[in-house]
Amino acid sequence: MKKIAIVLAGCGVFDGAEIHEAVLSMLAIQKQGAEFQLFAPDIAQSHVINHLSGEIMTEERNVLIESARIARGNIKALSMYNAAEFDALIFPGGFGVAKNLCNFAFKGSSMEVLPEVINSIQETHQMNKPIGAMCISPVIIAKLLPGTELTIGNDVETSVLVEELGGKHKIANFTEVISDKKNKIFTTPCYMLQANLVQIAKGTENLISKVIEACI
Amino acid sequence: MKKIAIVLAGCGVFDGAEIHEAVLSMLAIQKQGAEFQLFAPDIAQSHVINHLSGEIMTEERNVLIESARIARGNIKALSMYNAAEFDALIFPGGFGVAKNLCNFAFKGSSMEVLPEVINSIQETHQMNKPIGAMCISPVIIAKLLPGTELTIGNDVETSVLVEELGGKHKIANFTEVISDKKNKIFTTPCYMLQANLVQIAKGTENLISKVIEACI
Repeated sequence: MKKIAIVLAGCGVFDGAEIHEAVLSMLAIQKQGAEFQLFAPDIAQSHVINHLSGEIMTEERNVLIESARIARGNIKALSMYNAAEFDALIFPGGFGVAKNLCNFAFKGSSMEVLPEVINSIQETHQMNKPIGAMCISPVIIAKLLPGTELTIGNDVETSVLVEELGGKHKIANFTEVISDKKNKIFTTPCYMLQANLVQIAKGTENLISKVIEACI
Repeated sequence: MKKIAIVLAGCGVFDGAEIHEAVLSMLAIQKQGAEFQLFAPDIAQSHVINHLSGEIMTEERNVLIESARIARGNIKALSMYNAAEFDALIFPGGFGVAKNLCNFAFKGSSMEVLPEVINSIQETHQMNKPIGAMCISPVIIAKLLPGTELTIGNDVETSVLVEELGGKHKIANFTEVISDKKNKIFTTPCYMLQANLVQIAKGTENLISKVIEACI
């Protein structure tokens, strides 16, 4: 049975992992006969957003502890990730990716990536294992694996930044997956487009299917 | 197009709404050609649980604001719910149901139910519209609509409490729905059993299907 690691960036679209993309990735993996293990970095969130008002709240939360809500407690610190133990690595989206896993939301194409995220992607890539990234997560791939073909949907401003980071941006529609087979990188827009839940479910299924096909 | 209200109890299995059940209910409704509106009570959570350690945290959170994470901001206060505007009402599970929507987790069969939850269920039931409840949520139905046939899975201790509350408990297996057609109450165990995500997806689909069939 293929074993797939999923990296979460908190719990909630505006400051953490996009919950629908995360849950539907987990479902897609199980539906396709594989199993998953969740990971998240054990760091403070860059901030906490009130998801009702959109305003910043004056509290502090931890990315691993909040991600554990999506995981029902079954999650590990990303520093424990060992690429040798997994067949593939998946990054759901959400602003938390651009705020906690890297600082793209604040620095655009001059962003930095969290060291344990760099390690997880580089180790997995060096072992020739596939990586799937949805929504805004491909910005991290663009930075770490320059020259990779990938998508963040059709947003012009963001795709210019992706190109500045080093990615080769391809426009993609709802549920479409851009496959860079040479680099084993698979990306899909999910909520980077005005998608509904049925489209998110289909997009994550398509992505996971391509990732599993590319497993050794 | 049928319009279904979903009531959330926060964001996270141990102190709020069970995230997988909530998301997969939303998906099931869209897949079956209906639309949903999310609601949650605008009250303080009874407490906040660290979902990694299981311990109580010394912070305060609001049920509506945390539920908005699952809703991507698109959610209303439960006091705004008007049964005349909807075809059905759905309660996903999670301990937040037993801690925030009622106090079953603390008082067992001598529990009280939150006034806006009482109103939403009574109004919907009086208009002869169906109600679906998953996981632990049926305890509220047992209390408010005594004599209803329903399930919380197969846990003996909880099913005894359900009977004390006034419910007629029926044992149910993974993905099975107990239908009380006279009362238009539909229940399924979800994570009251040791289910996986594929079973949760199937259980919520089966429940939503029965609920939609029972819409006038």
